[in-house]
Amino acid sequence: MNTVEIIRKKRNGYALTGEEIHYIIDGFIKSKIPDYQMSALLMAIYYKGMKKEETAALTKIMLHSGKVIDLSAIKGAKIDKHSTGGVGDKTSLILAPIVASSGVKVPMISGRGLGHTGGTLDKLESIPGFRTNIGLRGYRHILAKAGGVMIGQTKEIAPADKLIYALRDVTATVESIPLITASIMSKKLAEGAEGFVIDVKTGNGAFMQKHGDSVLLAKSLIETAKAFNKKAIAFITDMNQPLGNYIGNWLEIYETVKVLKGEYVKDLCELTFTLSGAMIFLGGKAGSVEEGVEISKQLIKNGKAFDKFLEIVKLQGGDIKYLLQPELYPESRYHKKIHAPAKGFLTAVDTYQIGIASLELGAGRLTKEDKIDPKAGIILYPKTGTQIKKGEVIAEIFTDLHNKIEPVTNRLLEAIQISGKKPRGNELIKETLY
Amino acid sequence: MNTVEIIRKKRNGYALTGEEIHYIIDGFIKSKIPDYQMSALLMAIYYKGMKKEETAALTKIMLHSGKVIDLSAIKGAKIDKHSTGGVGDKTSLILAPIVASSGVKVPMISGRGLGHTGGTLDKLESIPGFRTNIGLRGYRHILAKAGGVMIGQTKEIAPADKLIYALRDVTATVESIPLITASIMSKKLAEGAEGFVIDVKTGNGAFMQKHGDSVLLAKSLIETAKAFNKKAIAFITDMNQPLGNYIGNWLEIYETVKVLKGEYVKDLCELTFTLSGAMIFLGGKAGSVEEGVEISKQLIKNGKAFDKFLEIVKLQGGDIKYLLQPELYPESRYHKKIHAPAKGFLTAVDTYQIGIASLELGAGRLTKEDKIDPKAGIILYPKTGTQIKKGEVIAEIFTDLHNKIEPVTNRLLEAIQISGKKPRGNELIKETLY
Repeated sequence: MNTVEIIRKKRNGYALTGEEIHYIIDGFIKSKIPDYQMSALLMAIYYKGMKKEETAALTKIMLHSGKVIDLSAIKGAKIDKHSTGGVGDKTSLILAPIVASSGVKVPMISGRGLGHTGGTLDKLESIPGFRTNIGLRGYRHILAKAGGVMIGQTKEIAPADKLIYALRDVTATVESIPLITASIMSKKLAEGAEGFVIDVKTGNGAFMQKHGDSVLLAKSLIETAKAFNKKAIAFITDMNQPLGNYIGNWLEIYETVKVLKGEYVKDLCELTFTLSGAMIFLGGKAGSVEEGVEISKQLIKNGKAFDKFLEIVKLQGGDIKYLLQPELYPESRYHKKIHAPAKGFLTAVDTYQIGIASLELGAGRLTKEDKIDPKAGIILYPKTGTQIKKGEVIAEIFTDLHNKIEPVTNRLLEAIQISGKKPRGNELIKETLY
Repeated sequence: MNTVEIIRKKRNGYALTGEEIHYIIDGFIKSKIPDYQMSALLMAIYYKGMKKEETAALTKIMLHSGKVIDLSAIKGAKIDKHSTGGVGDKTSLILAPIVASSGVKVPMISGRGLGHTGGTLDKLESIPGFRTNIGLRGYRHILAKAGGVMIGQTKEIAPADKLIYALRDVTATVESIPLITASIMSKKLAEGAEGFVIDVKTGNGAFMQKHGDSVLLAKSLIETAKAFNKKAIAFITDMNQPLGNYIGNWLEIYETVKVLKGEYVKDLCELTFTLSGAMIFLGGKAGSVEEGVEISKQLIKNGKAFDKFLEIVKLQGGDIKYLLQPELYPESRYHKKIHAPAKGFLTAVDTYQIGIASLELGAGRLTKEDKIDPKAGIILYPKTGTQIKKGEVIAEIFTDLHNKIEPVTNRLLEAIQISGKKPRGNELIKETLY
């Protein structure tokens, strides 16, 4: 086979065969095909896309570039969830113990935050002692024992994805639906789950800002899951404001605990229970998503979900004392309340800017090497549509960085729109695809 | 500046600024910007094109990556010609001495054949002793003395083009009008000419097979020449059959000599005189292209063009004995006449296949390392529209490779269409742009 001819074929808009995709990706992994040919092909894929068969072939070779975990020895259905990432999105932390306590197993391999969105791993690691790098043996062990486990990406899983992503990142070829699909699914399929619930965010705090793109990505993810005989349900959900009120690593654990202990945070709970309901349904413990939602609420109410959370955290080395008595957690050096500059309705939130504000306070990283301050972050009280009095506290910020207080305050005030007219409601769950 | 942002900007279809183009190309030349980012950008340019200002900026930085020859010390207008390449195209060899003997200087830097088309340098080097690598001092010296000189690309000229072309060649990004324009013009502008006559071929033996693409390329070349305050005229000319009857290196020198000595080979002479006429016009020695054509014919008739050819060949080390007595030239080991398999009109010629047939006989190279047999080639007698008798000799082949006789005969017969219906004439010069 001839690499240039394969690039030209894709460049001209033709579908590549499975053999051609294998030749290129396998060659790239083995350093036989140089970066510069791969990046030209990636750019051609950016423009010309891939048919679902091509995406499945790409996913397959990326998946088999590493270890594919076999969890068949562990009884019960194994269902995982994936989100494309948002601001204040702690649903994984809440739904994992809910679903695990329903009897459906939750093998979860998550990522770190980069850019304006947080990462599940960073949030978990804000619990003192919590270990996300427990290896594949620890992963199996805790999954079998507690029914749920939450670890980080390991080197054994889909190493091709790391290589390809690193190249996409520096060649402006990240925003491609087939490439995003193969990246997500090659890792997810390696985990050993039989089904996936997928949350594709749309809006000004999401990576996919346009609804249409989110739908295309959701369809592509579902098609690819099905090509590997996996069950999948996807939801297109709103990310035009942070989810819940707490943004920042420990702050999101704090809100997780509040919800697991029974507090009803409307948007956060509605989304979390829908996702957990879908997982319980896919795992065969409910006859429908709706029934799964009811089971989820029940598992909160009877305390089983919170107990499961404590069990998992303990097994992964976390000190549950902070979950039982959050007031023991260290406080940020600086804490500032932000007051509404005017009265009216909260009409819009620039969610991306809220994410960046949290990052600036120390909660996120701009480069992979940056250290995270687990205590730092933001509480944003009102939701869009909420009526606000002038001077009321609309947000609080937490940081150890004195020089960030002023700029972040300004950034937050600019990110929030208050006007006299009540805005039209924004649907949280916009579409369900399966 | 940020390379990824520049790639993304072009990817999204925006024009790059001169500074951005400079940053990228200069960085690439200096190995600060890696191949994989450059190739992603090249693919984005393939899809999104460039505005004329961008193409000019790209050409400028590529031009100034090497030596820009200043010929102002040599008196008189200096005009060169460029062709996008075809089969049997020996016009440069004929027009250079015509134009030089008109008093307009012809500083010509040519390329080698690669693929199905021949190269002026290979043709010249079929003259025993002829040297194309005489350095820039030799170039100036002979230009000043004879008014015409024909050399090869030197390392000092537009080294950026070599680097970029090598990358385009292996990433399927050759076929891009702005990239082709910058590649051609960066080299042409470095030669020191004040004006250019450009022959953009169109048809089944050309690199640009579609008329529309040829027009776009011609316009882009003219716009870029004008951006550097150079004069330019472009012709869109037919390449749906070889030009003249002789294809192969020495065979084309042989036909060149025939024309310079006064033989009128219709298509070849019509095109050559149009191009030389345009060069004489641009050089100020004629009031119009038509007058330049008349002057060209006169310079053939009075023998001055042929004398000038002998002078230039002699100055460049060539043995003119073979030009004066072509029968002294060594003959190919094998020589075969090909007879018409049917009677009728020659309706179509697959010119690309004719070029490949000539290459297979030894006249061309598939890789840069291949050696050329200067004697090898084809004579193709009829032109499309010619009436043919069954069994008449329509072609002759010359080669030292016995095993190529049979396959090349078959290839030639397949490349030629004979039918009962006289075809519509094909205009040789389709469009003039300036």
